[in-house]
Amino acid sequence: MSYQAPVSDIAFALSDMAELDQFETVAGFEAYDAELLEPILEEAGKLARDVLAPLNQTGDKAGATLGENGVVAAPGFAEAYAAFQEGGWMGLAAPEEWGGQGLPKALALAVMEMFHSANMAFGLAPMLSFGAIEALLAHGTDEQKSTYLPKLVSGEWTGTMNLTEPQAGSDVGALKSKAVPNGDGSYAVTGQKIYITWGDHDIAENIIHLVLARLPDAPEGSKGVSLFVVPKYEVEADGTLGARNHVRCIGLEKKVGIHASPTCVMEYDGARGWLIGAPNKGLACMFTMMNSARVNVGMEGVGVGEAAWQTAFAYAQERKQGKASGVAGAAPILHHADIRRTLTTMRSKVMAARAICYACGVAADLAESAETEETRQDARLREELLTPIAKAWSTDMGVEVASLGVQVHGGMGFMDETLAAQLYRDARIAPIYEGTNGIQAIDLVGRKLSMAGGKAMQDMLAEIEVTARSARETNDPIMVQIAERLVEANAALREATTWMQDAMKSNRETALAGATAYLALAGDVIGGHFLTKGAVAARAKDAQTRGRMTAMAGFFAETSLSSARGAVASITRGGEAMLAESEALFGIS
Amino acid sequence: MSYQAPVSDIAFALSDMAELDQFETVAGFEAYDAELLEPILEEAGKLARDVLAPLNQTGDKAGATLGENGVVAAPGFAEAYAAFQEGGWMGLAAPEEWGGQGLPKALALAVMEMFHSANMAFGLAPMLSFGAIEALLAHGTDEQKSTYLPKLVSGEWTGTMNLTEPQAGSDVGALKSKAVPNGDGSYAVTGQKIYITWGDHDIAENIIHLVLARLPDAPEGSKGVSLFVVPKYEVEADGTLGARNHVRCIGLEKKVGIHASPTCVMEYDGARGWLIGAPNKGLACMFTMMNSARVNVGMEGVGVGEAAWQTAFAYAQERKQGKASGVAGAAPILHHADIRRTLTTMRSKVMAARAICYACGVAADLAESAETEETRQDARLREELLTPIAKAWSTDMGVEVASLGVQVHGGMGFMDETLAAQLYRDARIAPIYEGTNGIQAIDLVGRKLSMAGGKAMQDMLAEIEVTARSARETNDPIMVQIAERLVEANAALREATTWMQDAMKSNRETALAGATAYLALAGDVIGGHFLTKGAVAARAKDAQTRGRMTAMAGFFAETSLSSARGAVASITRGGEAMLAESEALFGIS
Repeated sequence: MSYQAPVSDIAFALSDMAELDQFETVAGFEAYDAELLEPILEEAGKLARDVLAPLNQTGDKAGATLGENGVVAAPGFAEAYAAFQEGGWMGLAAPEEWGGQGLPKALALAVMEMFHSANMAFGLAPMLSFGAIEALLAHGTDEQKSTYLPKLVSGEWTGTMNLTEPQAGSDVGALKSKAVPNGDGSYAVTGQKIYITWGDHDIAENIIHLVLARLPDAPEGSKGVSLFVVPKYEVEADGTLGARNHVRCIGLEKKVGIHASPTCVMEYDGARGWLIGAPNKGLACMFTMMNSARVNVGMEGVGVGEAAWQTAFAYAQERKQGKASGVAGAAPILHHADIRRTLTTMRSKVMAARAICYACGVAADLAESAETEETRQDARLREELLTPIAKAWSTDMGVEVASLGVQVHGGMGFMDETLAAQLYRDARIAPIYEGTNGIQAIDLVGRKLSMAGGKAMQDMLAEIEVTARSARETNDPIMVQIAERLVEANAALREATTWMQDAMKSNRETALAGATAYLALAGDVIGGHFLTKGAVAARAKDAQTRGRMTAMAGFFAETSLSSARGAVASITRGGEAMLAESEALFGIS
Repeated sequence: MSYQAPVSDIAFALSDMAELDQFETVAGFEAYDAELLEPILEEAGKLARDVLAPLNQTGDKAGATLGENGVVAAPGFAEAYAAFQEGGWMGLAAPEEWGGQGLPKALALAVMEMFHSANMAFGLAPMLSFGAIEALLAHGTDEQKSTYLPKLVSGEWTGTMNLTEPQAGSDVGALKSKAVPNGDGSYAVTGQKIYITWGDHDIAENIIHLVLARLPDAPEGSKGVSLFVVPKYEVEADGTLGARNHVRCIGLEKKVGIHASPTCVMEYDGARGWLIGAPNKGLACMFTMMNSARVNVGMEGVGVGEAAWQTAFAYAQERKQGKASGVAGAAPILHHADIRRTLTTMRSKVMAARAICYACGVAADLAESAETEETRQDARLREELLTPIAKAWSTDMGVEVASLGVQVHGGMGFMDETLAAQLYRDARIAPIYEGTNGIQAIDLVGRKLSMAGGKAMQDMLAEIEVTARSARETNDPIMVQIAERLVEANAALREATTWMQDAMKSNRETALAGATAYLALAGDVIGGHFLTKGAVAARAKDAQTRGRMTAMAGFFAETSLSSARGAVASITRGGEAMLAESEALFGIS
């Protein structure tokens, strides 16, 4: 079966969990009108279903190829990109000044979720363009903006991020690419970059590379890194394309998944580029791209998870094995309780991650456009706090849920021809790129918990209490039970947070050894918070929505929130047990 | 780096966790001598390292192919099989009467673990032969035994299991293949079987297929299924090979992993076969094969997990990123606490699963050969109890640990060329075949918990208490803490067990909806029990072993046993939340 955009789940998560509707009254979002929400989602859903989804498995099989004139996208991808571009989807959340529609980023995230569900390899192309747009908006000169933004926002050109080199992955500061002044304001950029997503292709007429490199005599390490914009074709003063720049793809990686997304080895050989932002401040510029990319990668986890759940649900309705009460003859496996549990695990985790990512998007919107400085600052803290969780929790979830989808398919799930198998392969990259999930965890405990004296997490914990209270006040026994689990879990998160904040000062190694477990707990509790909030809001909706949301919140409360208490030990004591015996375990002290 | 058999971990798990050493004094194991343990493991380890491991990635790339004369194994596999066969590894645990060495099955499992680590696609060939040997030993006539067993035990021939048909997977009783008497004591077997592992190949001169089919006028469903032996080449009275039988491979599946293991569509077209066991009792015979295969599949989870841990550990020692205290320049990522935590998670889970599988093997040995009927019966209960846990918990662990191995590799882990990526793909089949892990969970709660009035789990719970007590009695604060966690976790398992036993009578759907979560808890607690037992035993060993085992037990106690209490809610209440809203979630009541 084909992907069907879950418009009602998405709209519900946006409006009733992530509170997108507030933008009807927030200055800076005049373009937003809640009435338009479902029509926009419906329209994006059609593109996802009719254009992108049909290319998902064919693209996986054919992959992108490297020819004499550069990378050729998988069959149909150029046409699909044209449809995407003509639909104006690239500029949905971009400023109207540059040709965008000025709608909330959270809405653009929801649209991207659909595209990732339908075809993650395709979705990566616009995802990287978003990052380039963000970086230029934040750090570009007026000239750079007017040169590149209109075409990036319209989708006529795409963008890339060029950070990684063989010796410089998570440790970006170890990069060696050079940028030497040409004397005319431009720089000659030279070096090799690896793992460059959509680094070359034939689906758009120009590619705007954002490249990290070192100026001559730059300090060592991350303090000597600068950001450059290097177009594939230089752009003349009148906006037409000029000379082909000295940058090319010299190799494509053979990967476990996302075969239709060309992962390029890029060679810069004195390519003409222009400095973005201040010299040696490239890392800060990179983080602008990176933050946008991180929540978008979280969206990939959600997108693949949604696709896996839909595929498994469809299979469970078709595949008949064994008997079930009330069914004559062989019963669809959906009737077996164990299968339904698996499907419910998948669906509720997808919904939780979706809400976390959208809420991160809403916070990013508010941080930029809320009326008061105080609201903007609080929102910025919320965005910063949720970004590593949105990225890591959602992508780990994507891998887990894709694996469960394979399991529902039985032997069929292990066959290459099955979409479930492709999703299992595709999902695996998301916990790795744009900062591994381990890096996200370290970012969370090392930076985000200490921002503004720990305010970001304190605000979150307080908000979770409010949600629990609202669930309890319904006096519905099911909701009261959910509230109880949420309160217990939130207390566990509070305890773990205090421990982590202290330990980061007093015993950093032990703290870092608990970082991944801490992020997992935070994701569970915040995810449970959003599901609970959804279940409360759904009481005012139709019976179907109410039943679905109550079941998801209840199931998640009993199966995920219930483990929060135990997770505290895992965070606070797991590291100690291991670090004390590093010599015996690893031969290092 | 190449696979190195972890001989000391394996010997330790066999002797000090699974109590293999008792066979020095048990009648029926005169062939076993503890002095020979390490030399045998070393020898098997050499074959794994020097012959099988070098073919793992080449086999993945080349795969098996189907030509005009049947299936051709990947390059080198025939030679590797010859080395395996000449080493006498197939007969390690087979009765001396049929040319075997009469050693414990647990030892053969440990040897198979190494082969699976080195090359899971290869390991599947002997694994299926084990099942055929078991079935013939238990249910074959004297003539069938003498016709097939010597050559199967010597490894000159291989065996297969032919159960699945397109409409008959988990629901074996839905199969349609027919067996019509030829009038001479043989039957004409006709039908199509799918997913037949090593169903055809050129690495041995004959293949002994065990095939489920229906006799004419057999009852419907699983009560009308009989087992037949169908050799690829018929065997003459003098033991030489005769006519080519009417069975052939008509297709090879394209799979996510284990590419070098040919997964065949087999066509039986009036192939000559002979009934094994009584008419219509094929399912019981099948379960003999299946039980042997299930613990062996668990061993695949352990084998792949061990390979993933070794590969990740090696990579973490080589790959340099970022700084670490005490290391000049860029530090190997092993020095980062988060990476070490990941590696410790991998290693401790592999060790726990290893012990569960070996203990299942020791129980199988005792069930067959212990001196008293009472001991044999208790051991049979233990084997029956541990089989679904060994299969499901170990293979879920295999997938999880292989995925963690990818993560440690970062971007490199997503490249097809990387062994870590192959392990992630290979591992995914093990939770599916030989009964999906969902089926294992249903077997555990539906059959194993009620056997002998629930004695199997009661005995296990009591034994875990003894282990906790022995840890506490060391008075070492670390061990006392581990004991405390084990006691709490065991209490949780006891509570969940009582609930499950009741619910299976009073509320079967809700019980079954908790089955997978129950199995996960049982695996955690029993795994923790073995690690604790190991940590106690290691106190009498060298400092290195003691440190390693204490760290693994301590880490597992804080990170896995600590979640047992929360798992009770997941088991007892998760199902309810979901089943109550089946209509809203799935459109079915």
